[in-house]
Amino acid sequence: MATWQLEREARDRRIRAGSAVARGKMVEAGDATRLLEAILRPGDRVCLEGDNQKQADLLSAALLAVDPAKVNNLHMVQSGVVLPEHLDLFERGVAKKLDYAYSGPQSARIATMLFGGKIELGAVHTYLELFARYFIDLTPNVALIAAVSADRDGNLYTGPNTEDTPTVVEATAFKDGIVVAQVNAIVDQVPRVDIPADRVHFVIATERPFFVEPLFTRDPAAITEGQILTAMLAIKGIYAPYGVERLNHGIGFSTAAIELLLPTFGEKLGLKGKIANRFALNPHPALIPAIESGWVTQIHSFGSEVGMEDYIRARSDIYFTGSDGSLRSNRALCQTAGLYACDMFIGSTLQIDLQGNSSTVTTSRIAGFGGAPNMGADARGRRHPSKAWLTAGQEAVAGGNALLRRGRKLVVQIGETFGENNVPLFVENLDALELAEKLKLDLAPVMIYGDDVTHIVTEEGIANLLLCRSSDEREQAIRGIAGYTDVGRRRDPKQVARLRERGVIRRPEDLGIDPLDADRNMLAARSIKDLVRWSGGLYVPPSQFRNW
Amino acid sequence: MATWQLEREARDRRIRAGSAVARGKMVEAGDATRLLEAILRPGDRVCLEGDNQKQADLLSAALLAVDPAKVNNLHMVQSGVVLPEHLDLFERGVAKKLDYAYSGPQSARIATMLFGGKIELGAVHTYLELFARYFIDLTPNVALIAAVSADRDGNLYTGPNTEDTPTVVEATAFKDGIVVAQVNAIVDQVPRVDIPADRVHFVIATERPFFVEPLFTRDPAAITEGQILTAMLAIKGIYAPYGVERLNHGIGFSTAAIELLLPTFGEKLGLKGKIANRFALNPHPALIPAIESGWVTQIHSFGSEVGMEDYIRARSDIYFTGSDGSLRSNRALCQTAGLYACDMFIGSTLQIDLQGNSSTVTTSRIAGFGGAPNMGADARGRRHPSKAWLTAGQEAVAGGNALLRRGRKLVVQIGETFGENNVPLFVENLDALELAEKLKLDLAPVMIYGDDVTHIVTEEGIANLLLCRSSDEREQAIRGIAGYTDVGRRRDPKQVARLRERGVIRRPEDLGIDPLDADRNMLAARSIKDLVRWSGGLYVPPSQFRNW
Repeated sequence: MATWQLEREARDRRIRAGSAVARGKMVEAGDATRLLEAILRPGDRVCLEGDNQKQADLLSAALLAVDPAKVNNLHMVQSGVVLPEHLDLFERGVAKKLDYAYSGPQSARIATMLFGGKIELGAVHTYLELFARYFIDLTPNVALIAAVSADRDGNLYTGPNTEDTPTVVEATAFKDGIVVAQVNAIVDQVPRVDIPADRVHFVIATERPFFVEPLFTRDPAAITEGQILTAMLAIKGIYAPYGVERLNHGIGFSTAAIELLLPTFGEKLGLKGKIANRFALNPHPALIPAIESGWVTQIHSFGSEVGMEDYIRARSDIYFTGSDGSLRSNRALCQTAGLYACDMFIGSTLQIDLQGNSSTVTTSRIAGFGGAPNMGADARGRRHPSKAWLTAGQEAVAGGNALLRRGRKLVVQIGETFGENNVPLFVENLDALELAEKLKLDLAPVMIYGDDVTHIVTEEGIANLLLCRSSDEREQAIRGIAGYTDVGRRRDPKQVARLRERGVIRRPEDLGIDPLDADRNMLAARSIKDLVRWSGGLYVPPSQFRNW
Repeated sequence: MATWQLEREARDRRIRAGSAVARGKMVEAGDATRLLEAILRPGDRVCLEGDNQKQADLLSAALLAVDPAKVNNLHMVQSGVVLPEHLDLFERGVAKKLDYAYSGPQSARIATMLFGGKIELGAVHTYLELFARYFIDLTPNVALIAAVSADRDGNLYTGPNTEDTPTVVEATAFKDGIVVAQVNAIVDQVPRVDIPADRVHFVIATERPFFVEPLFTRDPAAITEGQILTAMLAIKGIYAPYGVERLNHGIGFSTAAIELLLPTFGEKLGLKGKIANRFALNPHPALIPAIESGWVTQIHSFGSEVGMEDYIRARSDIYFTGSDGSLRSNRALCQTAGLYACDMFIGSTLQIDLQGNSSTVTTSRIAGFGGAPNMGADARGRRHPSKAWLTAGQEAVAGGNALLRRGRKLVVQIGETFGENNVPLFVENLDALELAEKLKLDLAPVMIYGDDVTHIVTEEGIANLLLCRSSDEREQAIRGIAGYTDVGRRRDPKQVARLRERGVIRRPEDLGIDPLDADRNMLAARSIKDLVRWSGGLYVPPSQFRNW
């Protein structure tokens, strides 16, 4: 006869072992490593919380310090590989296998370690996909998370950076796993309960607040006229005709330019109230002028943004906030909103090939995917119409039974033909494919597949891939906006001209836009200081963004 | 200058008005209607909790009793239109507009009311899509939810039927909305905290526990030999060759038959440990024999199932349970798991057309979609490989760059060629299209689109639509397994024979299955009583399923 309740008993043994270094649930910061040695078992699946923003940094340091003879071969299942310690774990043999989603700052080192066989790679996921697997086949045995404060029972306040925490805790605590939280402070009463105490087993107060990266702050001073031109093209050539009201903006200066052009260029075009009013988006400082000008109705956020706390609190009409007045973010729900409730994803990438496949992976850097694959994909389960979605769907399919036609998510790639350091955006073949061959991956690390991309915007114009009827047309449409890159120069001029006649390619002049008008004076804010001014002093930028 | 904090002030005014009929957060059941009249405003977006399982039934009755002169034109945004009161609200003018996902028991009446113009229809969603919109453009002003118990602060225990509650509350409470909970009891301490008190504004103790429908209980005694045959075909012809380990089963007798064949037919084929071990699934009683036989590793659930409470508690190795030992379900996260972490969705439908489009809508019944469109769609944002997913992807695309090939979700429709009351499963045109024309819908209520379906299984065989290279081949593949329906009899026998040679169609004999072997004796349990026996008496079926 089978024996049951084995997981629960194993959990209770871990809790008992951990309790030896705790007083109730409370553990001294200096005992963090001893705690982890007590509760971890070789081969455990561990989620060390960290994404593109907040980091359980004390816990990552404590984990790195464990005795590898006691704790080893861990299988890390976590959103971000961001801190050096995240990779040091593999060098020390504490960890062996990795399933993750994002590795921006560690993209070069993670590539080196993968090539060196130091890491056994599960897969590179999009956030929501990794969260999904937490409930099916990658459930953590132990979650090491970060919160702002805890009360003596272990109720947690995550504050604005709620992010992944509720999802990680739910997967772990409800499947007999152990949840360890680092908190900036122990308090008598938490400002609000983000995580109830009965899901939390150990709490460690730290001396320093957990680290948060202000990843979504873009200094308007760094926006170029080329980016302003692409932003104008996007607004007039895509946002306006499709009537895009619900959307997500990726990170980048081109989308920051769009945000800063709404109250100026957008206003002149009479688009206020007709486009860009509901977002699945972090609290981008660049959106402050649009919010203050009455463009934005509502924003739900994946995470928070350093310096935006007071502004968000004062603009709870726009943001999701808790009973304490501060932001409540939630990455899983916001990614879901981006997938199913938004009509457009617009973002930038590093490489685009002749069929529109794109990737941020190069042969020496594996940056991971973050949320782009999820939001930059057509949600085929969607069943509610909108103007933008239906229009895109009609363009994609000519003929057939109109009643069986569904809509399409608008997935837009925006960038200059030559990016940073003058590297061409367009390539014949993605580096991601070469990398996949070298690492013998079952799947190349393509960020967004060409068949999901609907438009590509460069300073040379907009390619509408929905209107392409063959892979050859698609290739020429892309070459036709690829400027002076090699890909652009190898275009077939006649075919490109025909595509332009059909509206597949639209040049600035086709949209009534004079490239000479693309001027920095059009930006609603031209500096971080301008953003602070727009916010009435509520936005408090991190020091690295202050030059005054 | 713009005025801000308007929503927060409006919320505080509502709370003050509601407090007049409350003691703290506590409201007498007899005052429920007065409370709702105090906190609701005409035109409010209201989520009246209810899905295919639990119902906030006291609150729906209380809402129906409001004075329509005070509360009217509500916009209902809710998973289920299930109780008669849900539709009575529209008859009385309390509600005007409807966005929803599922309406099984009210499918006939909702159709009548839509035709009669009594309801202004937003859209029929899949659950996760509606949840997504809660954060973008359908955020509830007021949520009326159901829980098992509350403490005096308002902390809620939802028990096994957590279901939609965390998602509904998060969308409402964090956007300055009001949350009203009906609970079966007020207690000194809740067994676990499913919803923290600071997200709950009013609590009403009811005399009767909230209603829960045992929707996922299928009596093995009602499983036919035809269903057993289709189940055998699915196991040997799909589960086995693709190696499907992570999956969801829809409601229905065919999938119940699969569950009951795993420990018998599946065991004989040597498939234990190789297929069907991780599920996104409600606690189906029919899966008990497979669990007891060691087939199943883990199950995450959308909701619970009446009578399974003790069994789940004793099998926490399999299910997600809380610190109190009872199930923690979560529809939003389980739907996400079904979308991104499962390799297969298999379910039944009412009508399938010549291209594989399917619908449960007929001209007189609109049952809604539930979770099928979400789980029965290819997740294009998925970036992790598995054998099942990669194999399906390779079959779907011949040629091209192998490195740019992604996998495919297996989406399987299973059913007998003639369904209930001898109605043919296959039709030339879906009734859903006629309905869409009559109601002037922008989008026909198609449950799963043909281009997402990979296989159709009937007693005549399996059609593998992945291998079809044209719409004509697809049509003949479907006709070729449509038996003696009109659609089946209009097949082109030569083309069907060629498709069979290519393995696009596989007959029982092609799989080494003798239809005469499809016998009820193969079922691991042949009655509800058998299931109880398998469970060691832990499964306590609801009275309507007991005949002893």
